[in-house]
Amino acid sequence: MIYPVIICGGSGSRLWPTSREKHPKPFLLLPDGQCLLQKTLLRVLGLKGVKEVLTVTNQELFFTTEDIYQEVKKPKDCELNYILEPFGRNTAAAIASAALYLQRRHGPEATLLVLPADHLIQDEQAFAEATRQACLLAQKDLLVTFGIKPTHAETGFGYIEADTHRSIDHGMLVKRFVEKPDLATAQSYAAAGNFYWNSGMFCFQAGAFINEMRLHAPEILDAVEATLAASSAHENEHRLRLDAANFEKVPDISIDYALMERSEHVATVPCAIGWSDIGSWSAMCDLVGADQDGNRLTGETVSHSAFNNFVQSPDRLTALVGVQDLIVVDTPDALLIAHREHAQDIKHIVGQLKQSGHEAYLTHRTVHRPWGTYTTLEEGERFKIKRIVVKPGASLSLQMHHHRSEHWIVVSGVALIINGNAELTLNSNESTFIAAGHKHRLANPGVIDLVLIEVQSGDYLGEDDIRRFDDRYGRA
Amino acid sequence: MIYPVIICGGSGSRLWPTSREKHPKPFLLLPDGQCLLQKTLLRVLGLKGVKEVLTVTNQELFFTTEDIYQEVKKPKDCELNYILEPFGRNTAAAIASAALYLQRRHGPEATLLVLPADHLIQDEQAFAEATRQACLLAQKDLLVTFGIKPTHAETGFGYIEADTHRSIDHGMLVKRFVEKPDLATAQSYAAAGNFYWNSGMFCFQAGAFINEMRLHAPEILDAVEATLAASSAHENEHRLRLDAANFEKVPDISIDYALMERSEHVATVPCAIGWSDIGSWSAMCDLVGADQDGNRLTGETVSHSAFNNFVQSPDRLTALVGVQDLIVVDTPDALLIAHREHAQDIKHIVGQLKQSGHEAYLTHRTVHRPWGTYTTLEEGERFKIKRIVVKPGASLSLQMHHHRSEHWIVVSGVALIINGNAELTLNSNESTFIAAGHKHRLANPGVIDLVLIEVQSGDYLGEDDIRRFDDRYGRA
Repeated sequence: MIYPVIICGGSGSRLWPTSREKHPKPFLLLPDGQCLLQKTLLRVLGLKGVKEVLTVTNQELFFTTEDIYQEVKKPKDCELNYILEPFGRNTAAAIASAALYLQRRHGPEATLLVLPADHLIQDEQAFAEATRQACLLAQKDLLVTFGIKPTHAETGFGYIEADTHRSIDHGMLVKRFVEKPDLATAQSYAAAGNFYWNSGMFCFQAGAFINEMRLHAPEILDAVEATLAASSAHENEHRLRLDAANFEKVPDISIDYALMERSEHVATVPCAIGWSDIGSWSAMCDLVGADQDGNRLTGETVSHSAFNNFVQSPDRLTALVGVQDLIVVDTPDALLIAHREHAQDIKHIVGQLKQSGHEAYLTHRTVHRPWGTYTTLEEGERFKIKRIVVKPGASLSLQMHHHRSEHWIVVSGVALIINGNAELTLNSNESTFIAAGHKHRLANPGVIDLVLIEVQSGDYLGEDDIRRFDDRYGRA
Repeated sequence: MIYPVIICGGSGSRLWPTSREKHPKPFLLLPDGQCLLQKTLLRVLGLKGVKEVLTVTNQELFFTTEDIYQEVKKPKDCELNYILEPFGRNTAAAIASAALYLQRRHGPEATLLVLPADHLIQDEQAFAEATRQACLLAQKDLLVTFGIKPTHAETGFGYIEADTHRSIDHGMLVKRFVEKPDLATAQSYAAAGNFYWNSGMFCFQAGAFINEMRLHAPEILDAVEATLAASSAHENEHRLRLDAANFEKVPDISIDYALMERSEHVATVPCAIGWSDIGSWSAMCDLVGADQDGNRLTGETVSHSAFNNFVQSPDRLTALVGVQDLIVVDTPDALLIAHREHAQDIKHIVGQLKQSGHEAYLTHRTVHRPWGTYTTLEEGERFKIKRIVVKPGASLSLQMHHHRSEHWIVVSGVALIINGNAELTLNSNESTFIAAGHKHRLANPGVIDLVLIEVQSGDYLGEDDIRRFDDRYGRA
């Protein structure tokens, strides 16, 4: 029995403008239409003996995560549980929470398989085999890493040096971890044969991990234990919200620094599993087939004398003339044009945006909510137009705005609307008006998405002009 | 007395995506917020003794042209007249129409100053002086061209060779016209001292021009005369719609080929007037000041290691990383990324779009109508959202749609609405519904723009589902 733990978090800086701080890398759609998180869940569901998957994520990302999971077909007897963090506290905190949680449920011999939600693994069969080896090593109370066999002298990853003098079955003991090397060092590592990329995936028994944490990082373990003791499951044990006041006291440190580099009981399973951390747009480029000019294009594109470019432009026509080696990523509110060799510098743009308070680092024009999404189509003086999509069975809060009235027109599906004391049902091509100061609620009683156009009108149209009276997602 | 003739037409290929076939170069906004057409009108109104300006343009461009002219403050006693072509027939036809029209109104000695509407002239004073010289030459029955003193060895223009052996006052006689040269020839022309760029601006008396046309291009003159005889002024003499059946028979040829290269009576006024035909995005780049990195940016832009780029992105954030010498032009439905050295190749993109029937070569997302504009904000299955702007006092046609109903929400201004037999007035934040099959009309009775959001709903939402019963712009 193995318990996959999916760590779903991370920032949005390296794959901006598609990723944003509130829409980080795990949610990015790959050219095949699946996002990395979805692929991660599919990957663990493909392993034998998985009856429970634990996801550690930010509480703001929970509803989006759940939406993505709901699209995945899974066995009926497989539980999906969550630990919800109030804010990010790095991997040591996240993994320790998971280990303590699973030990409580299943005892110290529960074997955890820890996987970041934003990596790509293209050889599922080799991954399953590596996991099998890792489990065997974990049964010997070892903390097992997955050492990726280098395909080139990469300077962007840390490396694991395997100890060639002490042989064990199913893998190798780890001699040391080394940080991101310079190019010459990376070349020597790639040539050496016993250096592997540190993939950030782990396998261990809960008890063995906790024992090692108690030895090498007791202050983290104590703080996480205190957090768990103070935390309550939201509806039940399956959705544990971490207590913010306690969690804030947990040191912000990676599991590598906190434990792996210090423990004497670390092993690695060398493997070649088609792994990529999709660390930049360069990696994304490689996933799209090139045309005869070397261009890798998704979306509507025309070109003339343009070679070796990558274009991701799902909504608009893009024309390339006489350009080479560009990365072009188009989103409704922001456009990136970068030279391929500068793919790593995109984080500087995000830094600039953050510093200047520009919200393009934070959110997309489409914003996810527990009940669905809204997309701002246009803003003008005294008006704002949104497309609102409400999931089947979902409901917005019972709310009121002081400064704006709202015109609602249903274009698809059916809406159940409370407006003051009245309740009405609108079908597509029907409309209603919510005056400022009126208590109202919008719900989708149907079985398909409700799509509604909202035209707001008023002196002030900020999202903060909202008073919530009742909310099924705990936001009132 | 001088009669300026503004030739307002041209295609949209060299400055795509800002220019489109139905929104050509004269309408392009320059960085100072004025369009080339507006600048051309201002230029001629700045000349002494101008009481009438004749504009030759396509009838589809008439309302937009008039809108732009209405923004220009002009003397009360100055008439603005129009010849409206049903389709483009090149410059010989356009100029011959103007000459015949003005001769009919003012006699053969009326002096015409023919100016393309899509050129930039930055030294207005030098232009006024050159015009004064040209008028003096025109009084001697000469056809006068404006010869721009070359500032560099340009291969993109035709040249005028002045005859240095026959001297005249106020200018020079022309020895010959030469076509666009190769670089070596252009260099010799630029060095020679008696070669000038052919600017496409002319000055002559109506009678002298018509006499020369009768001698060298009688088939064009006859066909244009027949067209004028068959044409009727729309409301009055000031707005002459050319008869399509006759105009179709006029040869499609430039005035240079048809007349200037053949006539023995052509002179030139050499001048340095800061002239540019804004022939490509390169010329547009030069109008925007560079920052310390050599970037010329309009709109919201962030950059990192990016140098000597031009960005025109009025509506969205654009980020540049590690790129150089790019031209980036962003519009709501199409994006251009070109290398500066390939600015001339942009026409190939337009050619490709035209060939594939993509409407991005033809129109913008905002479409001009006699009564104002509409902008498609979003299209989905069974719905379409438009922002409609109706000018003060304007009115859409009385119309009906078979397949779609329309929800209208006024966000600014006041709307007068006929819906079936009912008439109602809507103020901002009020709405109404027009059912499919209902005769309706929308008008703006106010003195500020009416801005209205329209949500269309139906099985078929094409622009051609319209039946017009009455239209004040003659479209019923």
